[in-house]
Amino acid sequence: MPGPTFITTDRLELRPPEESDIPFLQKGVNHPEVRRYISAFEGPYDKERYRDELWARETDGDGTTLLAVPKTGAFADEPVGSVSLAPVIQRDGYANFGVWFHPKAWGNGYALEASAHLLEYAFRERRLHRVSATAMTPNEASQRLCERLGFVHEGTAREAQFADGAYVDVERYGLLRDEWEGAEAVVETDP
Amino acid sequence: MPGPTFITTDRLELRPPEESDIPFLQKGVNHPEVRRYISAFEGPYDKERYRDELWARETDGDGTTLLAVPKTGAFADEPVGSVSLAPVIQRDGYANFGVWFHPKAWGNGYALEASAHLLEYAFRERRLHRVSATAMTPNEASQRLCERLGFVHEGTAREAQFADGAYVDVERYGLLRDEWEGAEAVVETDP
Amino acid sequence: MPGPTFITTDRLELRPPEESDIPFLQKGVNHPEVRRYISAFEGPYDKERYRDELWARETDGDGTTLLAVPKTGAFADEPVGSVSLAPVIQRDGYANFGVWFHPKAWGNGYALEASAHLLEYAFRERRLHRVSATAMTPNEASQRLCERLGFVHEGTAREAQFADGAYVDVERYGLLRDEWEGAEAVVETDP
Amino acid sequence: MPGPTFITTDRLELRPPEESDIPFLQKGVNHPEVRRYISAFEGPYDKERYRDELWARETDGDGTTLLAVPKTGAFADEPVGSVSLAPVIQRDGYANFGVWFHPKAWGNGYALEASAHLLEYAFRERRLHRVSATAMTPNEASQRLCERLGFVHEGTAREAQFADGAYVDVERYGLLRDEWEGAEAVVETDP
Amino acid sequence: MPGPTFITTDRLELRPPEESDIPFLQKGVNHPEVRRYISAFEGPYDKERYRDELWARETDGDGTTLLAVPKTGAFADEPVGSVSLAPVIQRDGYANFGVWFHPKAWGNGYALEASAHLLEYAFRERRLHRVSATAMTPNEASQRLCERLGFVHEGTAREAQFADGAYVDVERYGLLRDEWEGAEAVVETDP
Amino acid sequence: MPGPTFITTDRLELRPPEESDIPFLQKGVNHPEVRRYISAFEGPYDKERYRDELWARETDGDGTTLLAVPKTGAFADEPVGSVSLAPVIQRDGYANFGVWFHPKAWGNGYALEASAHLLEYAFRERRLHRVSATAMTPNEASQRLCERLGFVHEGTAREAQFADGAYVDVERYGLLRDEWEGAEAVVETDP
Repeated sequence: MPGPTFITTDRLELRPPEESDIPFLQKGVNHPEVRRYISAFEGPYDKERYRDELWARETDGDGTTLLAVPKTGAFADEPVGSVSLAPVIQRDGYANFGVWFHPKAWGNGYALEASAHLLEYAFRERRLHRVSATAMTPNEASQRLCERLGFVHEGTAREAQFADGAYVDVERYGLLRDEWEGAEAVVETDP
Repeated sequence: MPGPTFITTDRLELRPPEESDIPFLQKGVNHPEVRRYISAFEGPYDKERYRDELWARETDGDGTTLLAVPKTGAFADEPVGSVSLAPVIQRDGYANFGVWFHPKAWGNGYALEASAHLLEYAFRERRLHRVSATAMTPNEASQRLCERLGFVHEGTAREAQFADGAYVDVERYGLLRDEWEGAEAVVETDP
Repeated sequence: MPGPTFITTDRLELRPPEESDIPFLQKGVNHPEVRRYISAFEGPYDKERYRDELWARETDGDGTTLLAVPKTGAFADEPVGSVSLAPVIQRDGYANFGVWFHPKAWGNGYALEASAHLLEYAFRERRLHRVSATAMTPNEASQRLCERLGFVHEGTAREAQFADGAYVDVERYGLLRDEWEGAEAVVETDP
Repeated sequence: MPGPTFITTDRLELRPPEESDIPFLQKGVNHPEVRRYISAFEGPYDKERYRDELWARETDGDGTTLLAVPKTGAFADEPVGSVSLAPVIQRDGYANFGVWFHPKAWGNGYALEASAHLLEYAFRERRLHRVSATAMTPNEASQRLCERLGFVHEGTAREAQFADGAYVDVERYGLLRDEWEGAEAVVETDP
Repeated sequence: MPGPTFITTDRLELRPPEESDIPFLQKGVNHPEVRRYISAFEGPYDKERYRDELWARETDGDGTTLLAVPKTGAFADEPVGSVSLAPVIQRDGYANFGVWFHPKAWGNGYALEASAHLLEYAFRERRLHRVSATAMTPNEASQRLCERLGFVHEGTAREAQFADGAYVDVERYGLLRDEWEGAEAVVETDP
Repeated sequence: MPGPTFITTDRLELRPPEESDIPFLQKGVNHPEVRRYISAFEGPYDKERYRDELWARETDGDGTTLLAVPKTGAFADEPVGSVSLAPVIQRDGYANFGVWFHPKAWGNGYALEASAHLLEYAFRERRLHRVSATAMTPNEASQRLCERLGFVHEGTAREAQFADGAYVDVERYGLLRDEWEGAEAVVETDP
């Protein structure tokens, strides 16, 4: 049974993943276009390994993971992606932001909409001071998303990950509470 | 439910084995023409023993096992063989390559195609420096496969396994990252 | 679902028992004509007790148990008996051979055919040096089977088991690797 | 703390082994002259492995193991050997007899004295009908001991164990309740 | 008993921490001048809490922590600081470098000497491609140390930690294998 | 308390490691000259990690590890090295041989003496058919030892391990039961 909605946006329900979502989550992290730029997904993940490793991480007490489920359209009522804050380091008021969507749902602005509402939650409900994000340099879509959300580029970690046969640079971003414009403002400006 | 595709090749989907694949896997490792040259398959394996022993090995975190599933033809959508990297020794940048296919699907070049793409993954995603392989001397098909993949023959371990009533030699192979020609090049030259 | 075939003989498939075979196995070990001369079958066995006791023994890692399933005829596709090597003591290259068939299938030579192929496997695949067997003295069918298989009678253990209300002698047999004539030779000479 | 005496003989206390006896037991089973003819002692046994494997066997509910501790002399109050009935198969009224003594205490007749009293216990207290014993053919001391105790030689298992670089024959013995002469009679006739 | 030496430098023994080092480690992480700039040290740590939290992290399989113990002088044979690689992400060939020394031993160049040899180990034995480091902006000593070791400054994470009553910036550094000059070169140039 | 002697040679006692030997074992595997050419020793090992990882491996049921303890001289009664068979694959009659000695005891021929007697045990007591060994190419001492023991060089695995900052070749050796000359012959010819 799917879990209860946690946040409702214009077009999406954001809800915590349930055991019954594991097949979708697996399909996502195993997908070549998803895992290519996400070093944590060493894959391949069968169901048991997923439950033991990634699931444990995604459902631990500190962090927050939400699945994005469109209300209408081609993917109505099925999850199409995941947004998360993990880890959350309360002492520093700090969290790391992560996001991935299944390629089938790319191009609809779902990632922006889900991310914006997670950040809204981070700053307004979790009392966080700063959210960090990273994106491999070849992953331009992720970088565009960070910029749309208002993240500030703070530097490049040289050759910090290994992907697609080579060491790649990683772009580092930070977003402070004072810089956050609010979910509505971010989504509305979507061209 | 079958697991999600991890790698797509021209004719195959490579996906991690799931609980529902155990009957196929059992059939494979118990098959006389398969187990003859694979010492690890002491068999016979009933479902429970398979799950406890081989399954545990195949799905552990370090190694990677993928089932090959043809997209079309006589075996469309059913697994016909298995390719694996196990163990993976990260400190040395080393993995051992293993492969077996059900005799019903022999002669289609599926093993070459699946193996080539697993090696591509090994070198391009897992940051490995070398992949090793072994084949019992009487197993000429395995040796041909290694050679087609570009493995270099590095020696013969004399009487290192017991098969079919006698001690047999084992041929040892190695393939370095710099020697790897890429999956496409290997598969294309298939005569 | 029945397990996959492990060994194919002229008329039989030999395959490891599966959970779904427990009803047959229960029926066998509970059958008076079967359990009479097999001290290990203390019976009566309900399903749960069977699973806890005998099943655990038959599916443990060391030993090998195979069910014999005729390919054609009155019992096509249903198990009619069991052959096993248990225990296997690798350090000594030694195993104990056991066999029982449901009375409904007696008289067809199935036991000889299944046993011969299990011994073939023992000597050619498991690197065993010797296989032992025992038969209660009143059990003449078992003794004839041992002799047909080439076992050498090595002595009589006096009053070593209790069956049918009395202490009975037990005949002891041994078969060395060098004495084994091969499965085909044994089965062919079946008069 | 040593365990309580279970049987007292003229010169020995026979008592069940305690945790504190493990160092002695280890020394025994690791000793080359002891382990040479006892296939079960694959050794080497460190303390933990001893506790997990041999100890579990020796202290399980079915069998009976007793340590022999001289009352006086050079080895007063320290264990010098072990006698056991294991396994005990109650349904058949059957047990297997085993014995080993540390070489330092050989030549004193301790093994005969301890064995005789264990058999006395087997037949008089455990309601056993038969006790079996085996000895590797090269182990003449064990065979002499069996004969002194009244065991009847029942056959030779050809090449049934592997010891000292070769397959060796094993002598098989049986002793029935009716044949047992009693501990005192056996010990008194010690020349 | 202290653990064995793992790396020997001119003036230091570097050895893995043992249970008996917990009192020193506790004293270190509880020391105001140490914990001020190390966000992970939430303190106060009593022995049990230390063992449960920090100790578990420092002795986990992936990472490497070594205590620095001067060979001679005022602190001969007692630990004065700790250097570590944690976490180590083998797939990316990446590790994070951390260091702290007890104020009593500051000013002797011990931190540089220990750090240099840990990096030597990272690149020469662990097959790492890159080591990262961070230092809070007010912690100038740590930044000087990173620069002395050859780390390249790659950016500033704004207000990423909370220390001493305020959000502070964090300086981020990276050192690639090709940039590493070797432990000897680094230590020798110590002015 | 040290464990009991398992094998006695002219100058050495070979005995299974005990809990009380862990400090010595740790010192050995952490020693730079020892761990340099033994990839399995990733170190550093604190006591607990040693017990969890290496100790578990060394004392598991399949393999055999023995410590070498000189009877007289500078190291009388203290362990100076370790010889092992691990893993042991009974089905193939195969084991892998490993050896390391503390540098303090190098040059006395202890490694040869201990290794020769372990091989004697392997072939005469464990019914093994072949023992394999490997040595990194730069480790000439290990290669000389293998040759002295009669191992046949069977090939070179190119760049199969990472040590001292570079990928190194690994020499592979095999010794068959028929080729084994016996411990005495090997040790006596020590020039």
